[in-house]
Amino acid sequence: MGKDNFVEQIADIEKDFPQWYTDVVVKTGLVDYGPVKGTMVIRPYGYAIWENIQSELDKRFKATGHKNAYFPLLIPMNFFTKEAEHVEGFAPEVAVVTHAGGEELAEPLAIRPTSETIFGSMYSKWIQSYRDLPVLINQWANVMRWEKTTRPFLRTSEFLWQEGHTAHSSEEEAMDETMKMLGVYKEFAENCLAIPVITGRKTEKEKFAGAVATFGMEAMMKDGKSLQAGTSHYLGQNFAKAFDIKYLDKDGVQKHVYTSSWGVSTRLIGALIMAHGDNRGLVLPPVVAPEQVVIVPIAAKKAGVLEKCAEVKAMLEKAGVRVILDDNDNSPGWKFNEWEMKGVPLRIELGPRDIEAGNALIFRRDTLEKTEYKLENIAETVTKLLSTVQNDMLEAARVRRDNRIVYANDVAGILNGVENGNFVKAGWCGCRECEDKVKVETAATARVYAEGETAEKCAVCNGKAKHMIIFARAY
Amino acid sequence: MGKDNFVEQIADIEKDFPQWYTDVVVKTGLVDYGPVKGTMVIRPYGYAIWENIQSELDKRFKATGHKNAYFPLLIPMNFFTKEAEHVEGFAPEVAVVTHAGGEELAEPLAIRPTSETIFGSMYSKWIQSYRDLPVLINQWANVMRWEKTTRPFLRTSEFLWQEGHTAHSSEEEAMDETMKMLGVYKEFAENCLAIPVITGRKTEKEKFAGAVATFGMEAMMKDGKSLQAGTSHYLGQNFAKAFDIKYLDKDGVQKHVYTSSWGVSTRLIGALIMAHGDNRGLVLPPVVAPEQVVIVPIAAKKAGVLEKCAEVKAMLEKAGVRVILDDNDNSPGWKFNEWEMKGVPLRIELGPRDIEAGNALIFRRDTLEKTEYKLENIAETVTKLLSTVQNDMLEAARVRRDNRIVYANDVAGILNGVENGNFVKAGWCGCRECEDKVKVETAATARVYAEGETAEKCAVCNGKAKHMIIFARAY
Repeated sequence: MGKDNFVEQIADIEKDFPQWYTDVVVKTGLVDYGPVKGTMVIRPYGYAIWENIQSELDKRFKATGHKNAYFPLLIPMNFFTKEAEHVEGFAPEVAVVTHAGGEELAEPLAIRPTSETIFGSMYSKWIQSYRDLPVLINQWANVMRWEKTTRPFLRTSEFLWQEGHTAHSSEEEAMDETMKMLGVYKEFAENCLAIPVITGRKTEKEKFAGAVATFGMEAMMKDGKSLQAGTSHYLGQNFAKAFDIKYLDKDGVQKHVYTSSWGVSTRLIGALIMAHGDNRGLVLPPVVAPEQVVIVPIAAKKAGVLEKCAEVKAMLEKAGVRVILDDNDNSPGWKFNEWEMKGVPLRIELGPRDIEAGNALIFRRDTLEKTEYKLENIAETVTKLLSTVQNDMLEAARVRRDNRIVYANDVAGILNGVENGNFVKAGWCGCRECEDKVKVETAATARVYAEGETAEKCAVCNGKAKHMIIFARAY
Repeated sequence: MGKDNFVEQIADIEKDFPQWYTDVVVKTGLVDYGPVKGTMVIRPYGYAIWENIQSELDKRFKATGHKNAYFPLLIPMNFFTKEAEHVEGFAPEVAVVTHAGGEELAEPLAIRPTSETIFGSMYSKWIQSYRDLPVLINQWANVMRWEKTTRPFLRTSEFLWQEGHTAHSSEEEAMDETMKMLGVYKEFAENCLAIPVITGRKTEKEKFAGAVATFGMEAMMKDGKSLQAGTSHYLGQNFAKAFDIKYLDKDGVQKHVYTSSWGVSTRLIGALIMAHGDNRGLVLPPVVAPEQVVIVPIAAKKAGVLEKCAEVKAMLEKAGVRVILDDNDNSPGWKFNEWEMKGVPLRIELGPRDIEAGNALIFRRDTLEKTEYKLENIAETVTKLLSTVQNDMLEAARVRRDNRIVYANDVAGILNGVENGNFVKAGWCGCRECEDKVKVETAATARVYAEGETAEKCAVCNGKAKHMIIFARAY
């Protein structure tokens, strides 16, 4: 969008995290507010991150045997009533089309808040025999959930996501799929977004409306709050029965299928911002950064400088690096600020003296370190450095998070933990009353079961603990 | 979707073209009807074609300096009233959200039928100075136009498309953009879809509601009807004035920008089917075919056959060919029918005798020819053959079309021409009355101006002709 003035003041991340977030998303050109309340316009810089996320995830979905398809936006309202928990969970958030083509519709239509019902209705038509199973379909789409309080990427009435919907002949296979996709999400979050995540089962209260079990991945933001970055649901036969999805098995018996669904959304961009950003703005991991390297000429008018910059750019492009050369008239200092704010992982500074010495200065956005490298083999150097940045960002985030996981034995301990920006592990008896009490008294919710850990006593009622839970305040 | 019985009867293309189309789209698994009237489910085989179309177009958009973004689905109804022609054109087709989150909305919201208005509203905010221009943004999105009569891909209430929206400082630059993107579409249609297209300006009657001028590309289907496969609009300052998109020019004066918009949609899949298909089903050009090659083992249980097939598959994959090995239990004849119906460009048949002789039989879906090739260098052979098929399909379609372009001097001639499945070139005085008369008497419409050709007299009123027009019945 031309040469906006990016070098604007953003709020202090330590003093006002919410304002810092708002400043960063708007002022770096990731997003803007749409004319309808609660909607967002994802601007080119933000959308380029989404394209990289899509490309990385899509590869993984295809490698695990899934195919993409596209199902309609509009769903008959009565579909929602077929699965009792599902309608209860989603009806209050649905946007409804009542008129079209100049007439009132005979039946109101919902804009999809999620597509289990419409996938279910088609699967019941397509699946006849055990030979048709498994069905492994994903779609990239927009969905709409009417929300009272909205924030760009984190909670908007419309957002972009992918939703996988699969059907299987056995409980075991559907559960394997559920866990496999949770694993795909985790690997992607860690290796592409450089965000360490904790995966685990969700409580009944926190599970997806209509699921038998929901598994989530939770990421710690820099304010210590948790962001649910993706979910994978084992749906059992709930939707199969609601939509009569049956197949003739090898033994000649008609049986209901078992289904799963799983999704991640443009929320992930919010996660990226809040997991890595700092007082200078965005810090983007190389794998999903729209531009991985910016070249800034120093004393650009001196003979040979721009030529050398263009040469380096060409070498990096040839090596598959996403690189831009910022050769406009702004000062180098201005450009440094602008591209730091936009979170470009590496900046190469090239001036007459560097060129003469056969060197380039490279600035790392993640560590703020500036190091001199030989111009010889610059493509190799940069490629290695990008990989180092990617790994270091994950490790730094992991250390930050691991230092902020504490244990508590009572509600006061949970409160103290979350007030100090921690994830808190505590025992839980499994009852809804105790879970609600934690929320009321600490504003924290049960994020996921701490897999592989057990507790003696419930931190709320002191009764026998069934699970160790990770409590946190959450986005 | 498992092993559907694809080898079903489809209607005769010569006897019942509409039924042939319906049979092909449904029975090859491209598409299914959604639960809401007029909607479609794009199934994996159809969506894979769309993904290839997207990938080819997106490359071209980026190479011409465009960036992707995402704008909201919902548009305040009052936005449409800001541009007088636009509201007249689109209001009758709009689907309207009146309720959301359990409440009636203060203002009804339109589901985008196209996004000039919402892009306009944001551009008026983002564009301040000549330095911000040009703005070159595209989005991939779903849109909704409520239609009375619908057919999968050709006309559905919801469809997928891309829409480019650009803003410029001068009329000339906006017009250059309009023509450049028309050129991108033409090159793409011919080189990727193997569909020759005629591009040209549309009449006032046929132009986009709100445009100063619309340029379209028209493709001839096998029944001789025309399909509008893409449009590029020069919008002048119509939307700039409606949405107050102004910039401070170098001379210190506030000026309105000039805008363009351009789009193609999932209609292109309908064009592919009807431009190339035959009585055996689909015939897909290699560039956009989900699978470019199918390997069918002959006497698959004989020692070494499946191993050799797998080896050939690996070699082709390594060469970047999209290939599948159909090793299920169906007979080779069954498989031949199935994959011919699905339009896979090449079939490799490999049996014990072929292997022993070091040969493979390759069947071309486009020409129905079977030729023996050496297994040595099979990857190179196949790669070359795919390129030959791609070129030959375009040339064959061009010959078919060029043989069906005729001239007429009067309405009877136009009627006779279109009844025999032709595009008809005829002179036109430029008045709406004559244009309407052609439609009433021949069911043909003015598709585009025949660029570079002139006529003496109007075929309708015998008055002085302003333009040579291509008339055709159209989808």
